[in-house]
Amino acid sequence: MFIACLDLEGVLIPEIWIGLAERTGIDALRATTRDVPDYDELMALRLSLLNQHGLTANDLQAVVAELRPLDGAVEFLDWLRSQCQVAILSDTFYELAEPLMAQLGHPLLMCHHLDIDQAGRVSGYRLRQNDPKRAVVKSFQALNFRTVAAGDSYNDTSMLAQADAGILFCPPENVVREFPSFPVCRDYAELQTAIEDVLGQETTATPAIRAAS
Amino acid sequence: MFIACLDLEGVLIPEIWIGLAERTGIDALRATTRDVPDYDELMALRLSLLNQHGLTANDLQAVVAELRPLDGAVEFLDWLRSQCQVAILSDTFYELAEPLMAQLGHPLLMCHHLDIDQAGRVSGYRLRQNDPKRAVVKSFQALNFRTVAAGDSYNDTSMLAQADAGILFCPPENVVREFPSFPVCRDYAELQTAIEDVLGQETTATPAIRAAS
Repeated sequence: MFIACLDLEGVLIPEIWIGLAERTGIDALRATTRDVPDYDELMALRLSLLNQHGLTANDLQAVVAELRPLDGAVEFLDWLRSQCQVAILSDTFYELAEPLMAQLGHPLLMCHHLDIDQAGRVSGYRLRQNDPKRAVVKSFQALNFRTVAAGDSYNDTSMLAQADAGILFCPPENVVREFPSFPVCRDYAELQTAIEDVLGQETTATPAIRAAS
Repeated sequence: MFIACLDLEGVLIPEIWIGLAERTGIDALRATTRDVPDYDELMALRLSLLNQHGLTANDLQAVVAELRPLDGAVEFLDWLRSQCQVAILSDTFYELAEPLMAQLGHPLLMCHHLDIDQAGRVSGYRLRQNDPKRAVVKSFQALNFRTVAAGDSYNDTSMLAQADAGILFCPPENVVREFPSFPVCRDYAELQTAIEDVLGQETTATPAIRAAS
């Protein structure tokens, strides 16, 4: 059996921090690791902006609840779940993503946590582990699953490389240039075809410990 | 974040082989490991019965498609998915369970495979690994997730013991007697309360590698 490991933002839903920036009017929340390469520094900036504007975790969830999955994402995901198992591997935070996960029918999500203090302020964050997407794919493989992974950016490439098949979905051109070995899909129809090709490779050669005949 | 690891048959759906026995009229398909303790022997018996009666994998899926999740299972599972992550750990086979998984909204399922030959006959089976439910729980824990597990029978007890919290759901009395350390729930309302208690223990003590404040 294959487990399809999908990135979340940019693959099924819009970028959450950009959605927050647009809907709160706090333009500085648009910053990404391209602007602030150090992730801890970027997160410290984001949390400081949220608190400066008095935005609680509840406020953020209310804003995220107004966002919608990308056009066609729900249908694509429904199709995918009928074909194989699905896990969403993301660097987002449970406390932000929940309203969008509900709209996607709550597929298994593996990501990180925000710390919320008693006043509801976002006081910090906890990354679950280092190189988390690749670690999950390795772990599925150790359980004798095959894996196909799709993502759009740098933080997906170690997952794509670890997976039995890795696919770039709507990536920026610099990622395409830097990782020429990954096939590129630019819409859900292309991604569906690419995944169908991978799933079609499943044979009785799938690892197993015992068989009767 | 917690991942709730649920057994499938007896917890969310009826026993599939008994459903097959009832709806095909092949009474010998009711045999379980209580009747034939050796699992390989039991499976060889089941496959031989299927082939003897000319039942293909498609026929079996058509029969399973007439089965329904247990009363209240869909609502319970919807509630659970809104509270934490969910994985279904089962010793069933993907090729049998699919019509019921569709009715449950396709939560992640980790189980085994039947081999289907070109004529559509069930020619064998492949167990994914030994002690598979416990192995998955260990693997989630190694990814820094906490786990709560629920199941109804012997083949769940190693998963229940490995999980941060293990709960017996509608177990037979001999399992209750043999494993007195596990709390017992006898309906979904009790199971929901027991899981809420476990999830309430989640604190910022959840493992994490990095935090900002």
